[in-house]
Amino acid sequence: MGEFDLIRRFFTRPTPRAVLGVGDDCALLQSAPGMQMAISTDMLVGGRHFFADTDPQVLGHKCLAVNLSDLAACGARPLAFTLALALPEADEAWLAPFAQGLLALADDHGCELIGGDTTRGPLNICITVFGEVPAQGANTRNPLVPTSALLRSGAQVGDDIYASGTLGDAALALQALLGRVALPADVQAQARQRLERPSPRVALGQALRGVASACADVSDGLVGDLGHILERSGLGAEVDVDRVLALLAARAHYPGAAAQFDQVLGTAWNPQNPQALALQCVLAGGDDYELVFCAAPTQRAAVQQAALLSATPVTRIGSMQAAPGLRLVDGRGRSVAPQFASFDHFSAATQTTA
Amino acid sequence: MGEFDLIRRFFTRPTPRAVLGVGDDCALLQSAPGMQMAISTDMLVGGRHFFADTDPQVLGHKCLAVNLSDLAACGARPLAFTLALALPEADEAWLAPFAQGLLALADDHGCELIGGDTTRGPLNICITVFGEVPAQGANTRNPLVPTSALLRSGAQVGDDIYASGTLGDAALALQALLGRVALPADVQAQARQRLERPSPRVALGQALRGVASACADVSDGLVGDLGHILERSGLGAEVDVDRVLALLAARAHYPGAAAQFDQVLGTAWNPQNPQALALQCVLAGGDDYELVFCAAPTQRAAVQQAALLSATPVTRIGSMQAAPGLRLVDGRGRSVAPQFASFDHFSAATQTTA
Repeated sequence: MGEFDLIRRFFTRPTPRAVLGVGDDCALLQSAPGMQMAISTDMLVGGRHFFADTDPQVLGHKCLAVNLSDLAACGARPLAFTLALALPEADEAWLAPFAQGLLALADDHGCELIGGDTTRGPLNICITVFGEVPAQGANTRNPLVPTSALLRSGAQVGDDIYASGTLGDAALALQALLGRVALPADVQAQARQRLERPSPRVALGQALRGVASACADVSDGLVGDLGHILERSGLGAEVDVDRVLALLAARAHYPGAAAQFDQVLGTAWNPQNPQALALQCVLAGGDDYELVFCAAPTQRAAVQQAALLSATPVTRIGSMQAAPGLRLVDGRGRSVAPQFASFDHFSAATQTTA
Repeated sequence: MGEFDLIRRFFTRPTPRAVLGVGDDCALLQSAPGMQMAISTDMLVGGRHFFADTDPQVLGHKCLAVNLSDLAACGARPLAFTLALALPEADEAWLAPFAQGLLALADDHGCELIGGDTTRGPLNICITVFGEVPAQGANTRNPLVPTSALLRSGAQVGDDIYASGTLGDAALALQALLGRVALPADVQAQARQRLERPSPRVALGQALRGVASACADVSDGLVGDLGHILERSGLGAEVDVDRVLALLAARAHYPGAAAQFDQVLGTAWNPQNPQALALQCVLAGGDDYELVFCAAPTQRAAVQQAALLSATPVTRIGSMQAAPGLRLVDGRGRSVAPQFASFDHFSAATQTTA
């Protein structure tokens, strides 16, 4: 099958929203009046971001999900995306389910495939996604140009910090797949679902426009991604580890409850600290595709309203402070100082953010 | 060096045009009122699109040039781009010149780097580029949404066909680099320049808005890319091979002139047809990044004016016809029917378009 046949067969679809879709030198996209385009790009490499034998339908879902999660973090409404694909061979048995997983999620979010590129090479998937936000509101990076996008830079001292959904289950599933920990079958199945089919928090992100002061998506781990907010806002934070630990769904639902989880799984992981596995997963696991965001305490009702509107649970996990750095405390306010690495694609050495 | 340090060091730059550049979950770009966004994405794979030891500065230039060429083909003004990069290692000695070549061309075209992604993996460069065109004029693909973008689909029976600049020299340089043909040193140097530092015809593309009826860039070879116009316009064409042959700069400037070129180089290539090498390069060579476009005969003065305004030579090479297919004729109108393959990344077999 030739390159052009491939594109036609699997990736040419109607694009009612775009002025022009796949098939010309460029696609054409027109913003509605008063809107801005939010743009993000992510590259996933076979053998690095996913196992070479990953179910292609799962992979199709996930590679768009990680991009939609970036739009969610900005509060943008998804519009369209482009797909560049390097494949070792034009294998229909791989392409058909990949396209199915990809386009099913695209349809769920009304996000049109408007263009792309296919070539032969080591498996590599690069998606660039386009969303829109109203061009009004305070822009903490550039006061001259209004935007309603949620930025990492808008957090204020005293703001509450929230996380959406659950955290750490994707990382736990990965540890199990790598054979480093054994989970009960149903716990593993649920955790693996979180690893393979993340649900980008697109509705929550949009509902938080005008409510949250800063937002990021949790792709590299909570500590690292909250760290981006701290850095861009020039602030520090205190996070309640007990509240965060409760966000590990596998631990909360473990047969016999959380203490049992820590005892059985955690001890095998680190006998000195039975909670170490759970902490590592929730704080630095990565692949969660949840949102971490800040909002003034006066916005607590509005945050709950946004959570309700978007049918997405949110949990208050800490607060922003003037003193730089991230402080982890337990439920009684006592400092806990584990060294958790955020994922960095080019650092062999462990980077500690805590 | 960590991923974030890398990005900061080489790829974080002021973005006066974008609402928000590198450093958040998304970049923000706002179209001027009445404008549409033209979007194109290209993925270049090490060892496939370029030699693994290619000078990184040359590579930086080229990987943006091929994207700007897509904007040129639509008549769009460049605005911004994103860069996704998979690298075997974070090698500063490679990254510094790569960034230099990339950003020098970006600056030449006022095209801002607004976002990206870096990861470890087999060398892969994926750029998505954004330009703008006025949202007015006839849209041959979708009559309901006006656009002034040049599309592949607008050609009419009787339209002249033009090519910009020179054709085939990049392909000839590649043959020489592969050791399949020997060129005099100065001829080889000029041809290699065309292979390594293509000049996307961005100014010509914009000058052709409202003048050309259809346009494509020549990236995979004239026959293949003109073929896209034929297919999308539902027409055929006749192309004067003698006029096209004259566009091979290396042949025109060969010491002792074109006949000598055919004799010395062509015979070594194909003794039965001394012109075969030159024809293969100009018709199916690829990597030219020129424009092939159509315009009504009533627009001849306007086409010349566009060429003058953009300081880009254009040559009339044929005309559009109702009968499907591409007919190659010599200067005396006699049919010549070589089998020229356009480049297809997934076809092992030769595809003939002629």
